[in-house]
Amino acid sequence: MTGGDRILGIDPGSRITGYGVIDRQGSNLGFVSCGTIRTGRGRPLAERLVEIYDGLVNVIDLHAPDIAVVEEVFVARNPRSALLLGQARGVAVLAAMKSGIRVYDYTPRVVKQAVAGYGQADKAQVQRMVRALLGLSALPGNDAADALAVAICHANHSPFVTGPAAG
Amino acid sequence: MTGGDRILGIDPGSRITGYGVIDRQGSNLGFVSCGTIRTGRGRPLAERLVEIYDGLVNVIDLHAPDIAVVEEVFVARNPRSALLLGQARGVAVLAAMKSGIRVYDYTPRVVKQAVAGYGQADKAQVQRMVRALLGLSALPGNDAADALAVAICHANHSPFVTGPAAG
Repeated sequence: MTGGDRILGIDPGSRITGYGVIDRQGSNLGFVSCGTIRTGRGRPLAERLVEIYDGLVNVIDLHAPDIAVVEEVFVARNPRSALLLGQARGVAVLAAMKSGIRVYDYTPRVVKQAVAGYGQADKAQVQRMVRALLGLSALPGNDAADALAVAICHANHSPFVTGPAAG
Repeated sequence: MTGGDRILGIDPGSRITGYGVIDRQGSNLGFVSCGTIRTGRGRPLAERLVEIYDGLVNVIDLHAPDIAVVEEVFVARNPRSALLLGQARGVAVLAAMKSGIRVYDYTPRVVKQAVAGYGQADKAQVQRMVRALLGLSALPGNDAADALAVAICHANHSPFVTGPAAG
């Protein structure tokens, strides 16, 4: 099993869903794309769920990732926000599954550990580390950075394709 | 605007999703179908979300409802169960939206009020009232009864098609 080389990270939210696409070639990570899907303010949740789903299907069609990674969230401020976040996460996972790509998840602590070296890193630290790890010329936005961080986390946790000793 | 006459009620859950289909003709309610979509035990959540989505799309294809109604839940035991429930609810709403039917929601209190006369009714009371209101020969299961209750609630809350004084 080689694992795919193009990884889509998703940071779902009912208002803003971040996405980030990276390529992994051996132990090198390459930036492909990142951005956000912003759902219509004041629109019913049902319509916003369709916007998230369609937006992610578009991203998948455009960049053809082999794998999707979605943060596994256990804690939310309260049950109401957890229910909102859950609905966004559900359609995000479905968008990947219906596009025929495997879905992995990692807890926020593991993601922060992977990109910033410790599990309590704050958003600004994650942004800076994502920028450094991918050699970006500018800081990615918060939501896109979180999505890229999830993708980087998977790249570092899943087995590399084995080959001759790296030259 | 006449409103559809066939109503699909959905009671989403990551393990068991109940559904119930009723017809409304004037002020009469007719039972069409009810049942549950049970997701594979021990399967990853991503696959279970696909099962819920596909199961509901099948129900919609089979019974061609005009409207879907999904309970709007605000309270869950804890954020973790809210996140699970949210993901199931998200794909349930998406299944209806992607099938081109409108989605409505009501709070559990309003649903219980509509079928049992007061908002604190327990599950057994909801089952018995659903049976009585639809003239069923047997008690529907818990999850199917909840789904039928949501459909009945919408039937009672949305405007009837106006016509000559009922004969």
